[in-house]
Amino acid sequence: MSDFETRMRASFDRQAMMATLGVVVVAVEAGKVCLSMPFNPALTQQHGFIHAGAITSALDTAAGFAAYTLMPEDAAVLTVELKSSLLRPAQGDVFRFEGRVIKPGRTIMFTEATAWSETENGQTEIARLTASMMVVQGRETLRG
Amino acid sequence: MSDFETRMRASFDRQAMMATLGVVVVAVEAGKVCLSMPFNPALTQQHGFIHAGAITSALDTAAGFAAYTLMPEDAAVLTVELKSSLLRPAQGDVFRFEGRVIKPGRTIMFTEATAWSETENGQTEIARLTASMMVVQGRETLRG
Amino acid sequence: MSDFETRMRASFDRQAMMATLGVVVVAVEAGKVCLSMPFNPALTQQHGFIHAGAITSALDTAAGFAAYTLMPEDAAVLTVELKSSLLRPAQGDVFRFEGRVIKPGRTIMFTEATAWSETENGQTEIARLTASMMVVQGRETLRG
Amino acid sequence: MSDFETRMRASFDRQAMMATLGVVVVAVEAGKVCLSMPFNPALTQQHGFIHAGAITSALDTAAGFAAYTLMPEDAAVLTVELKSSLLRPAQGDVFRFEGRVIKPGRTIMFTEATAWSETENGQTEIARLTASMMVVQGRETLRG
Repeated sequence: MSDFETRMRASFDRQAMMATLGVVVVAVEAGKVCLSMPFNPALTQQHGFIHAGAITSALDTAAGFAAYTLMPEDAAVLTVELKSSLLRPAQGDVFRFEGRVIKPGRTIMFTEATAWSETENGQTEIARLTASMMVVQGRETLRG
Repeated sequence: MSDFETRMRASFDRQAMMATLGVVVVAVEAGKVCLSMPFNPALTQQHGFIHAGAITSALDTAAGFAAYTLMPEDAAVLTVELKSSLLRPAQGDVFRFEGRVIKPGRTIMFTEATAWSETENGQTEIARLTASMMVVQGRETLRG
Repeated sequence: MSDFETRMRASFDRQAMMATLGVVVVAVEAGKVCLSMPFNPALTQQHGFIHAGAITSALDTAAGFAAYTLMPEDAAVLTVELKSSLLRPAQGDVFRFEGRVIKPGRTIMFTEATAWSETENGQTEIARLTASMMVVQGRETLRG
Repeated sequence: MSDFETRMRASFDRQAMMATLGVVVVAVEAGKVCLSMPFNPALTQQHGFIHAGAITSALDTAAGFAAYTLMPEDAAVLTVELKSSLLRPAQGDVFRFEGRVIKPGRTIMFTEATAWSETENGQTEIARLTASMMVVQGRETLRG
């Protein structure tokens, strides 16, 4: 396993929020992270779809860790801002999230992420995110 | 209690995601909704702050229900898109969220929301959201 | 020329702003519009780059007309909101913009657009936009 | 005139785009900039309203220079990303723009801006912007 994947997975494991949502890591490359989440009634909104906030949380995490794989060893990643577009209601058995860096940088990494829902009939794109990730360095207490 | 508050609270209670996050309704006015959430280690990211996605989920819900209070009785609210700006790390004992409609409309409601963290030393603004909410009508299965 | 291209080009020609910026139509397909703009010192910001607002104007127009190609004949297109990410400074001889619909809809079309700068050494991506476009119908005075 | 106002006005005067749009500076405070622009048919879209891109250009400039007033003397300001919400069609005789910093920072300044149209009957809010501005330092060729 590459150094960045080891660091990324260790940091992911410290995100209690991902355990709460049931999100797991599927694959990690330099600048790209894939996550997965099963349908869970505890994450629904009033119509029975997965809440836009749960989908956005997983998209943000996929994008943030995609950025993190390109950062120096002693850096931490923080989301500056994100925009999430909810293309279709989040229905399905399993949800898949792919985050990627579209423009790396020393202080800001531009990222995007896509969410798909999967059923026995195939997969459907349900949401897209764009986010600016900050590379935080020189703060001893902030790593990962 | 006004009709819109009754409808809004009934819909909020059907959002399992809000129970999962520990978010409760504090106050409801026409075009304005206030929510609250205690700190919960199950919602943290890798540095121990509340995850940007959990904050965004509560902001989205506050904004969405603020829009819902201004909608016809048979309508449903869906988030079209949201942008969340993470001004400061989400540290604190309690978090407060205020959503409001800045421009109502027949099909789209423009909304904003603000998040504050509260400690014994006072409150700090930690995040802002802007979102477009769609007024969905004429779909029998979609209410609230 | 297809009906939608005829309608789209007629509407584009009524956008005085595009003439002011020097933007021209390069290609039109169903759900996709390509525009081009030469470098013009009248559109620069303080460092001599093309102003983020000029780039965003062309991106918004490419995305809006991409949506318009998929709309009914009697509809008008209006931008609800847009997010523009300025990946790199807008330097170059010519700028190219591609707008496309990523999810059509009866009332809202989700769109994206990309901007490239072109020099003799090749092309570079400089900006990306995501925008929600509204399909406006039934307003006699609003067409195109 | 304060040092930051002198620097800000000098930089604004180098923005040829602002002259092209007819935008002028109305007032400058630490962290806040007000601009004004008359209606101009050369800036319209197909329905005769001012183009969303022209409004967004002025909002971005107001927000960017609001951030610039809080930056060190040797810094330059660059827009990372902006989101513009087009609340109402841009009709009117004169347009007014107010940009302000909502959270300053060493590398990123969070900003917002509001646009109003003014007629003899009063003023109407027509658009809002949120943007992240980067503080660029240590690049000799980039100032203002």
